[in-house]
Amino acid sequence: MANAAVVLLSGGLDSATALAVAREFHFDCYALSVEYGQRHRAELAAAARIARVLGAREHRTMRVDLAGIGGSALTDLRVPVPEGPSAGIPITYVPARNTLLLALALGWAEVLGARDVFIGVNVLDSSGYPDCRPEFLAAFQALAALATRAGVEGQAARIHAPLLALTKAQIIATGMRLGVDYAATVSCYQADEAGRACGRCDACRLRRAGFESAGVADPTRYR
Amino acid sequence: MANAAVVLLSGGLDSATALAVAREFHFDCYALSVEYGQRHRAELAAAARIARVLGAREHRTMRVDLAGIGGSALTDLRVPVPEGPSAGIPITYVPARNTLLLALALGWAEVLGARDVFIGVNVLDSSGYPDCRPEFLAAFQALAALATRAGVEGQAARIHAPLLALTKAQIIATGMRLGVDYAATVSCYQADEAGRACGRCDACRLRRAGFESAGVADPTRYR
Repeated sequence: MANAAVVLLSGGLDSATALAVAREFHFDCYALSVEYGQRHRAELAAAARIARVLGAREHRTMRVDLAGIGGSALTDLRVPVPEGPSAGIPITYVPARNTLLLALALGWAEVLGARDVFIGVNVLDSSGYPDCRPEFLAAFQALAALATRAGVEGQAARIHAPLLALTKAQIIATGMRLGVDYAATVSCYQADEAGRACGRCDACRLRRAGFESAGVADPTRYR
Repeated sequence: MANAAVVLLSGGLDSATALAVAREFHFDCYALSVEYGQRHRAELAAAARIARVLGAREHRTMRVDLAGIGGSALTDLRVPVPEGPSAGIPITYVPARNTLLLALALGWAEVLGARDVFIGVNVLDSSGYPDCRPEFLAAFQALAALATRAGVEGQAARIHAPLLALTKAQIIATGMRLGVDYAATVSCYQADEAGRACGRCDACRLRRAGFESAGVADPTRYR
């Protein structure tokens, strides 16, 4: 029987690729999306489609009202999404987001008896978020060994970030090889209801540059 | 001006005492309750009262649907709450709960610019949950330094667990000194709507023994 893995799936390009990688390694995938009050809800609809197409065993969406704490352009509608490059950590950073996502994944993994968790973070072509760095992931791995019943029993889930050191172009090349339909993914921070992208935010710019540099026609639907 | 602190407040005996300790240290307290699908919702009503009485600046309740992942007697109504002592980690353990609670507190602290987070865990008279141990807290502290913008800027929130090494009797003595009204707190895992305790679950037994050993009349309302 295949090993079970929890795969964090936002519906964007990176997490769709992470799911495809987990499937390539023969994991029985439990895809987890988190509705944390993000603007770009079209991502969540995309996640459901991607989970189905890429053969996830189950797809679950959990709600956490991060919008209640605000502090990010992704969860606070009063804060505009920047449309040019920003210095340092951008305002689209969501405080403690990946800690929270991994905590939910860890909890579900423990209930499922899954020993593996996948997250599609990458450090090179990312936006400089602190919780996309290898040292953050190492610290979460150390925490997982102490935080859970499985950890106490020496069976802590392993946190996999297979895209961590890849460029956006390499991620896209990986996904193309594994049959990911990137037209179905939504990366834009301010996608409209139909999932069409603005083409101007940080996520759109990184994504477009990735397709260009991978030599792949950009399938993104822009509005 | 007083320093701001986020205080995790379940509405139980321990977290009420942690809030009183934070107030004793002159923190401006932002109390955070999390509705994670727990059976004992009376705790949340208690939390609102306690936050008010103990002078929290603000009290916020965030929702996270941990019931969706199940795996615990506290979130899965089909799993009965045990009424006798259990060996090892009991079924009332909620997978990855304190990781999640601290992630939410960390996120809110960052938005508030708060440098301190209080959590009322204690290891001695606890139920053997892995995420109440000092090594878990140390690992979360290490994570906090890497997970957030504040951490990157060398301003990571400090995680305080002032009750960590105290017995239940010592916690109660601390709270009595600081004027905590324990009649307002709800610890029972299966309290009824009015907040009345069963007197038989693990939480009730630890609490009752604590009052006895502290030489304080037990103000708990049993049903």
